[in-house]
Amino acid sequence: MNNFSFHSPTRIVFGKGALDQMKKYIGPLGKKVLLVYGKGSIKKNGVYDKICSQLSNHEIWELSDVMPNPRVDKVKEGADLCREHGIDVIVAAGGGSVFDCSKAIAAACFYDGDPWDLVVGKAKVSQALPIACVVTMSATGSEMNDTAVISNWDLHQKIGLHDDHICPTVSFLDPENLFTVPFSQMAAGIADILSHLFEQYFTDVEDAYVQDGLAVGCMKACIHYGPIVLKDPSNYEACSNLMWAAPMALNGLLKTGYSMGWSCHPMEHVLSAYYDVTHGVGLAILTPRWMRYILDESTISRFKKYGVEVWGIDANLDDFEIARKAIQKTEEFLFETLQLPRSLSQLGILEESLPEMAKSCVETKGGSVQGYKTLYEKDVLAIYKACL
Amino acid sequence: MNNFSFHSPTRIVFGKGALDQMKKYIGPLGKKVLLVYGKGSIKKNGVYDKICSQLSNHEIWELSDVMPNPRVDKVKEGADLCREHGIDVIVAAGGGSVFDCSKAIAAACFYDGDPWDLVVGKAKVSQALPIACVVTMSATGSEMNDTAVISNWDLHQKIGLHDDHICPTVSFLDPENLFTVPFSQMAAGIADILSHLFEQYFTDVEDAYVQDGLAVGCMKACIHYGPIVLKDPSNYEACSNLMWAAPMALNGLLKTGYSMGWSCHPMEHVLSAYYDVTHGVGLAILTPRWMRYILDESTISRFKKYGVEVWGIDANLDDFEIARKAIQKTEEFLFETLQLPRSLSQLGILEESLPEMAKSCVETKGGSVQGYKTLYEKDVLAIYKACL
Repeated sequence: MNNFSFHSPTRIVFGKGALDQMKKYIGPLGKKVLLVYGKGSIKKNGVYDKICSQLSNHEIWELSDVMPNPRVDKVKEGADLCREHGIDVIVAAGGGSVFDCSKAIAAACFYDGDPWDLVVGKAKVSQALPIACVVTMSATGSEMNDTAVISNWDLHQKIGLHDDHICPTVSFLDPENLFTVPFSQMAAGIADILSHLFEQYFTDVEDAYVQDGLAVGCMKACIHYGPIVLKDPSNYEACSNLMWAAPMALNGLLKTGYSMGWSCHPMEHVLSAYYDVTHGVGLAILTPRWMRYILDESTISRFKKYGVEVWGIDANLDDFEIARKAIQKTEEFLFETLQLPRSLSQLGILEESLPEMAKSCVETKGGSVQGYKTLYEKDVLAIYKACL
Repeated sequence: MNNFSFHSPTRIVFGKGALDQMKKYIGPLGKKVLLVYGKGSIKKNGVYDKICSQLSNHEIWELSDVMPNPRVDKVKEGADLCREHGIDVIVAAGGGSVFDCSKAIAAACFYDGDPWDLVVGKAKVSQALPIACVVTMSATGSEMNDTAVISNWDLHQKIGLHDDHICPTVSFLDPENLFTVPFSQMAAGIADILSHLFEQYFTDVEDAYVQDGLAVGCMKACIHYGPIVLKDPSNYEACSNLMWAAPMALNGLLKTGYSMGWSCHPMEHVLSAYYDVTHGVGLAILTPRWMRYILDESTISRFKKYGVEVWGIDANLDDFEIARKAIQKTEEFLFETLQLPRSLSQLGILEESLPEMAKSCVETKGGSVQGYKTLYEKDVLAIYKACL
């Protein structure tokens, strides 16, 4: 097991009626609130009203219309608002995009320069406003980690800012708030959770029993409850499992001791930065092709374990047969059960743009993608082509 | 899944050379240190010297001879020291007993009355000194949770104090520090970790996939690496797995969403309070007898899952056959592989003392033990008798 450091200070308030505890936990964080949200679905599903009622003793400013793949311009707008009104605490209601945007705002309001400097590491985060998240969409786990992924449309870049200061102070997870998430968004969210699990589980550290158990438990939660929630969106049991699997997949616990390296995420970030595709959709398309591309003698034992423990494939079969069956089951789950688009062409991505994107992908990562297997420009391009 | 709240703010620094980072993390916590430890094994294995060298810029006072099942008298002694010298931070080096004692001291030094008031809840913890733990023995997971179990010899009581304020600020886990733990202590520690896992895993909430995965991963870590570390105490892989399984079994994560109730622990606490037995040894003796006692139609599905997923028993067998095999394997693991004592008589516990202990056990818990199955005085007595 590798050396690691783990710190996840976010308080989680989970379950039916979790929002009823907002007053108790947000009260001590300050009077002036910036409420950040997306396109306004929280006004339809009652979450907006609940928040306002819980925060009736606070002064509230609003920043709405945070879009998927949140942009640095929006971060700047939010940071300016915070400074102008002396905001004490940010309340972020939505999913990963709203949380990431809010976390970047929380840090940017203490930095006078361009917020993009913080994202690319030109400047260091010195402090941040406290953040409270109200989860209405489960996918990125941003409600329980130190990461904010921000896009810069001018530069075609989508980069993660990681800093202890931007861990949310408290997050409220009521599974009933997932009941109204549209099918396609829920499906993309499940693909995103699974991708986080794969990116960490596929590692050359094979002696991490605790982490393996947690990863397998989270994968089984997605695979078992994915089809249930898509058929029956108000299934509390399914929503609660997915809602807890999302942050557990990416709060830093899983990567403890693993040799962690992202593979599909850097490849997807380029797709999003060029074509603004939905993150989970891009990941779903890439994942099985990446799995096939890296399957060889050096990776087979991990794929075998995956096939046997996650998909229940007979351990007595030939190792490569197990691995191929497991990848096929992964593919069927993503494209048939979750009904996600299965190709880049379906998203309108043109073959001629692949070389530039492959180049951009490895350039952002310093020349190669250091994942489970190192991927160079030609590898990324080959995987993109297999996705067409 | 049940509603829950989860908060585990302790920073974990894990791996070879973890203690080299003490200066960095303890420096900002203050100048005046109370160093708490046990019988002095840390002076033989080099841990004491490493701590002193890392804290060379601090003023250090010492409280040694903290014994297993730490007593409230020792807590009082430590709290007096802290007040007298204006201690800023407690550095606790050892295992669960040292950590629990230190955590109670950290809280007691802000309370003028008898520290026992805090343990029994007569007074509330208002604040606590920051605590840094250096783990040299893995078992209770106290290095990553909000609990301190304290004994009162006069009252024959052993009770857990739970409070957010006493979560350690930082804990240093170097698996190499387990290399010199004696066989019998390591075995008792593994039994303790397993017991924590069983107490939570055996629950009537059967839809918690994430938690189940984590529990099974931790159990497998103990079962796979237990015999390895007992044969080869310097096996880094084994020590790192056990060292990480211990806090993950009891940092609050596993009980999230489960219907949590302790069964074997309250029964063991009475044994310790009357006979000062080693906690893990008492738990090992009780566990398989408790399992057999509660096995029936209402608990069978959980025992079946345990047998199939943890012990790899053929899922096609009769459910009760799977359950009985699983309990037998548990027993063999505890008494043969770990070579722990298998009966209360072996510990010198007399049959005539059982009724009084059974009575004391349920009285401390308000009339019954509210575990996986509720246990009344007659049930506790029957389980004690089965352990003779």
